[in-house]
Amino acid sequence: MKPLKLGMVGGGQGAFIGGVHRIAARLDGEWELVAGALSSDPARAKASAAELGIADARAYTSFEDMAQAEAARADGIDAAAIVTPNHMHAAPAVAFLRAGIHVICDKPLAATREQADAIAKAQRETGKLFILTHNYTGYPLIRQAREMVQRGDLGDIRVVHVEYVQDWLTEAPDPDNKQADWRTDPARSGAGGCIGDIGTHAFNLASFVTGLKTESVAADLDAFVPGRRVDDNVHVMLRFAGGAKGMLWASQVAVGNENALSLRVHGTKGGIAWAQENPNVMTFTPLGEPKQILTRGGAGATDAGLRVTRTPGGHPEGYLEGFATLYSEAAALVRHVRDGTALPVGHHVPGIDDGLDGMRFISASIASSAANGVWTPLV
Amino acid sequence: MKPLKLGMVGGGQGAFIGGVHRIAARLDGEWELVAGALSSDPARAKASAAELGIADARAYTSFEDMAQAEAARADGIDAAAIVTPNHMHAAPAVAFLRAGIHVICDKPLAATREQADAIAKAQRETGKLFILTHNYTGYPLIRQAREMVQRGDLGDIRVVHVEYVQDWLTEAPDPDNKQADWRTDPARSGAGGCIGDIGTHAFNLASFVTGLKTESVAADLDAFVPGRRVDDNVHVMLRFAGGAKGMLWASQVAVGNENALSLRVHGTKGGIAWAQENPNVMTFTPLGEPKQILTRGGAGATDAGLRVTRTPGGHPEGYLEGFATLYSEAAALVRHVRDGTALPVGHHVPGIDDGLDGMRFISASIASSAANGVWTPLV
Amino acid sequence: MKPLKLGMVGGGQGAFIGGVHRIAARLDGEWELVAGALSSDPARAKASAAELGIADARAYTSFEDMAQAEAARADGIDAAAIVTPNHMHAAPAVAFLRAGIHVICDKPLAATREQADAIAKAQRETGKLFILTHNYTGYPLIRQAREMVQRGDLGDIRVVHVEYVQDWLTEAPDPDNKQADWRTDPARSGAGGCIGDIGTHAFNLASFVTGLKTESVAADLDAFVPGRRVDDNVHVMLRFAGGAKGMLWASQVAVGNENALSLRVHGTKGGIAWAQENPNVMTFTPLGEPKQILTRGGAGATDAGLRVTRTPGGHPEGYLEGFATLYSEAAALVRHVRDGTALPVGHHVPGIDDGLDGMRFISASIASSAANGVWTPLV
Amino acid sequence: MKPLKLGMVGGGQGAFIGGVHRIAARLDGEWELVAGALSSDPARAKASAAELGIADARAYTSFEDMAQAEAARADGIDAAAIVTPNHMHAAPAVAFLRAGIHVICDKPLAATREQADAIAKAQRETGKLFILTHNYTGYPLIRQAREMVQRGDLGDIRVVHVEYVQDWLTEAPDPDNKQADWRTDPARSGAGGCIGDIGTHAFNLASFVTGLKTESVAADLDAFVPGRRVDDNVHVMLRFAGGAKGMLWASQVAVGNENALSLRVHGTKGGIAWAQENPNVMTFTPLGEPKQILTRGGAGATDAGLRVTRTPGGHPEGYLEGFATLYSEAAALVRHVRDGTALPVGHHVPGIDDGLDGMRFISASIASSAANGVWTPLV
Repeated sequence: MKPLKLGMVGGGQGAFIGGVHRIAARLDGEWELVAGALSSDPARAKASAAELGIADARAYTSFEDMAQAEAARADGIDAAAIVTPNHMHAAPAVAFLRAGIHVICDKPLAATREQADAIAKAQRETGKLFILTHNYTGYPLIRQAREMVQRGDLGDIRVVHVEYVQDWLTEAPDPDNKQADWRTDPARSGAGGCIGDIGTHAFNLASFVTGLKTESVAADLDAFVPGRRVDDNVHVMLRFAGGAKGMLWASQVAVGNENALSLRVHGTKGGIAWAQENPNVMTFTPLGEPKQILTRGGAGATDAGLRVTRTPGGHPEGYLEGFATLYSEAAALVRHVRDGTALPVGHHVPGIDDGLDGMRFISASIASSAANGVWTPLV
Repeated sequence: MKPLKLGMVGGGQGAFIGGVHRIAARLDGEWELVAGALSSDPARAKASAAELGIADARAYTSFEDMAQAEAARADGIDAAAIVTPNHMHAAPAVAFLRAGIHVICDKPLAATREQADAIAKAQRETGKLFILTHNYTGYPLIRQAREMVQRGDLGDIRVVHVEYVQDWLTEAPDPDNKQADWRTDPARSGAGGCIGDIGTHAFNLASFVTGLKTESVAADLDAFVPGRRVDDNVHVMLRFAGGAKGMLWASQVAVGNENALSLRVHGTKGGIAWAQENPNVMTFTPLGEPKQILTRGGAGATDAGLRVTRTPGGHPEGYLEGFATLYSEAAALVRHVRDGTALPVGHHVPGIDDGLDGMRFISASIASSAANGVWTPLV
Repeated sequence: MKPLKLGMVGGGQGAFIGGVHRIAARLDGEWELVAGALSSDPARAKASAAELGIADARAYTSFEDMAQAEAARADGIDAAAIVTPNHMHAAPAVAFLRAGIHVICDKPLAATREQADAIAKAQRETGKLFILTHNYTGYPLIRQAREMVQRGDLGDIRVVHVEYVQDWLTEAPDPDNKQADWRTDPARSGAGGCIGDIGTHAFNLASFVTGLKTESVAADLDAFVPGRRVDDNVHVMLRFAGGAKGMLWASQVAVGNENALSLRVHGTKGGIAWAQENPNVMTFTPLGEPKQILTRGGAGATDAGLRVTRTPGGHPEGYLEGFATLYSEAAALVRHVRDGTALPVGHHVPGIDDGLDGMRFISASIASSAANGVWTPLV
Repeated sequence: MKPLKLGMVGGGQGAFIGGVHRIAARLDGEWELVAGALSSDPARAKASAAELGIADARAYTSFEDMAQAEAARADGIDAAAIVTPNHMHAAPAVAFLRAGIHVICDKPLAATREQADAIAKAQRETGKLFILTHNYTGYPLIRQAREMVQRGDLGDIRVVHVEYVQDWLTEAPDPDNKQADWRTDPARSGAGGCIGDIGTHAFNLASFVTGLKTESVAADLDAFVPGRRVDDNVHVMLRFAGGAKGMLWASQVAVGNENALSLRVHGTKGGIAWAQENPNVMTFTPLGEPKQILTRGGAGATDAGLRVTRTPGGHPEGYLEGFATLYSEAAALVRHVRDGTALPVGHHVPGIDDGLDGMRFISASIASSAANGVWTPLV
């Protein structure tokens, strides 16, 4: 099959997540990068494009130009990937959607509720696709976990524990650290720091696997590093619709943790535990039986996981493969709306609603923490 | 050295923790069991005593009799171990203290604040020793963790996460399960179920290692099993004096967990993680350096841990050894007050203040949960 | 940079390793698949090519035609990837080399020593590149392990233990299992079964990391499954030049193992341990110090590993990324010989000598086992 | 029940294993230490005895005196524990057996085959009990593993891998290190160093669990440390009666290992893996099903393991408990032969035959290694 055509906003030289998106787009051969507004700095935009093999004519210096020009081309891009800092999601997303171009956007949805609402409005009014790269949902065992919950292997869910802890911001970062710089600047990251950057991943993961709707949160947010203007440690208790309870911990100051995203779900009939840093194994304990180690692609693997796996059990897949799955799911969706091809059974890709849920989680948590931890509904 | 003389209240046939106390008392050869009021049932008391090699004359059928008789003997017991259900701690503890006999008591301190206060009053007024078997403080690596915090290896503590989760009460227990029966009966366990039985262990462990005083808690307690009259799942956020924050999870309905007590402490300069089910290893990450696996008795072991270890690194010690350490520490303390022998450097054994702290933790958490999670001081 | 042009021999519909090679070639954007002789079955060759977006004109039905035609094109392929069963490596490899086209070949080098020698001769006489995909050498921590050995972190190596164990051939396979079928047929796999398929990977890994030359082996090979015509379990003791010793275990009948390739190296000053199924961590113990957990991209990472890593520590890379590194190293080599671009410091890719070493290992082991385990030199 | 009376030979101040035996004897309350020839140095013998509460009259300065005197007493010891270096096992063992006193002896059986045979002869001729403390057989999960093999959970055994590796002799030890001193002196340890000290443990464990008889070995022994007079690294391939194969690695120079004894057994229907340093878990994979984590006392626990466990699952037992189980089994055996009490179902304690097997293993391995690895029968 002919690859789809991808454009990219952000992700020029010196950026981090743009490179990840490009590998993810490339890995399954479903996308070809043909256009970009890779940097707001024109020289860097051009140089970055050249490096990536993007034709000069499609190396734009503004996303507005790109949206207009690509929409006008017969061979225009099928989707635009937005990989800028949080406060720069909304403007390009709205521009591409309104130009009739599907959008694949990094998370969290936006820096503010207003920005988020603007994206949602544009998506609703244009009907174009909006895909949010909550990439951890692409891990095969996470797909399997969700399937196991859905089919009742765990019984009724009672307690959910999710964490995403890091240590890279334990101290005030080097001023030259571009990644740290915007993430600790409320003007660019939004009112939430850690909670937006990784707390939303944790929240999304718990929601995705359990299918539970969070009704309210009681939060205790801290900025431990002197001078830090956004939270760097997040404690949240969760109440889900139906009575299940949860705890969420996100931190960027937990020394000894790299990207320690983990999920544990316990129900009336079973419990599972999974951790991102070794994502090819998950434990599952059926009540009263020995704990099992389920492997990606191994005995006990389910359809939902197998569909998005590329190598046999014991040949580990990682972060990039999970991310790539989102791009492949996105491709399937683009072909579906464009060509009418059927979506595969179990197809899933996070979208605008997941993004809005994340924004609700951020703002409810910040509000709760500001009000001394009062239980605050997600609205 | 001649072993000290121990008496026991509770722990007759069919009991669980009594047997543990007996092995612990025996393991280091510091104690000899010579008297007991092992059951409130006279026949069982006698039979149990016989089985344990206790002379008939010292097989009592009431703890009151035992306290009086042993106090009167020239060769009377040096201490009484109280291993009854929670609501039956206070009466014998007070009786022995007032009879001039030291007390070693299982945790939590009591079923109610009133009972706890009565014990504390008797202890204060008599000046006799009162030792509370928060046995997990006896693990060598827990001693080492405390020492590492004290000497600053972790810098200033910022976040503390402690859990004690089990699954044995996931369903309503068999009515014949004696252990489950009293633990789920508020008349015997106290107002707290899970929070008293294992939540206090978690709370004590975090306090012991970090040396931090908990100022207030925000709690969300549940009784998930239909008909259960006490909590079986406990979510608590903690605020410590000085600004550190914490989360505590205790559960008896988390399928796939046996006695999953774990502690993670993160400071400005380092982080540690330890789990009870494999207690001979602890990870320690100095900021910016590789994570280390510290082993009990291995490279990096500190005095505080080595003093209470019996076997070389790689020859695992377990639950009974940690428990035995409390009995040995108790013996050292009894000899210290009796004979004036010096206490070893680093000697520690939990006492009445730890017990009162635990009671404060229970009541503040229950109060917080009842008041919809409002932050509640420990008083 | 413009991607290099790749052709593929084998890897049509129903094959396994061909798909892996294609993802690996694509992942870093260095290669573009433009030609193929994907199957000896013409219809399948065409269909497979179409599916992969290969132009009809370059969908060959024989590798001989492909070699001639591609050599004749101005835009001919830069390299041919050979992903056929073992007995079908030599003929195409020789054909492409002699047509002046570089070769990337799956392992082991060949089914027989004669075939291997023919490839080596063609490579020597043509001077074209020959790259053997011992893909596990592409893992960043394996690169780091090698660098640590080279710079003396482990002191003088004394003992080396390497294993590659699986369980997928525990029973006689389904006759429809194409992967199992040729691997258990001496006419296609060569005289070695398990030893050739995965034993050579283990052998290569140990050699790569330690830099030690194996002088002789004492082997005990078994075919446990009734009717199996090649070995399925391999025990080998190793003697290295300089006095170090080793053990190697390869098995396809070890129930409970998927792709359990692991390496442990112990020297006078330190020891390391690594396992392929969670390849992002490695333990390192400097003599007398605590064991360290080194992570890919984390504290303690070295240049050799960092150069071939794509994501930060804690975002796991896996099998495909390691495989992709070989394709990127191959690309760098092709550009080097074509354009004179410098090779990066630390560049490495396995080649013909590694392949010949593997063949020597296979034949010495088979000979030793046939001679009741006599120590047999690798010649 | 009244405890049995134990005497001890060796184990005075400064010794290691004597203290372990004493805790083991005490732990279950089955034995009381009442006599000892604790040191060949009279002053130390007296002082050590006093410290242990042994009456002066029973603090002997020679084992010969002790054997005679205790045999003559109405309240003489029920058994003598021999905890001296290897070359000092035979003389006291023979003396006590011939005096009519049961013997509990540390492993290996002796320093030489002649000594071993002398013990065996004395045992056979007197009919007294001889118990060899291969303590790792006391671990509950090892009992369970044996039971699982016996009942066919693994099918027919094909491959067995056992290791016991340490690093404490990586360098020439301090001359004051008493433990290292005799273990590296062939006059006291026997011709084997590492192979006798820990290789026999590994060999015994594999034999115990699998029930397989080793027919022959091919060995490669090294003394890596300059000047060392006994082996410190041991590579052995094993052939079992019936066709199963094995590998055994024992080392005292493997940096990063404390007491890394591990066992893996693979059969036609399943595989298990267990490691001593975390002895409360074992994995079990039934062919084609997910791997299970079996815990001591948890779901899936079998009678053989439960019978010798003291605490519930998740409350770890360790080295001392496993050792204590051997003392309790010994007590049951002594009572059985003395009082006619029934042995519990599943009772097991290693004896003279295990000791002789170990000696055969040592001498066959040394002979094989000396003969350049020729397969050598165990005779």
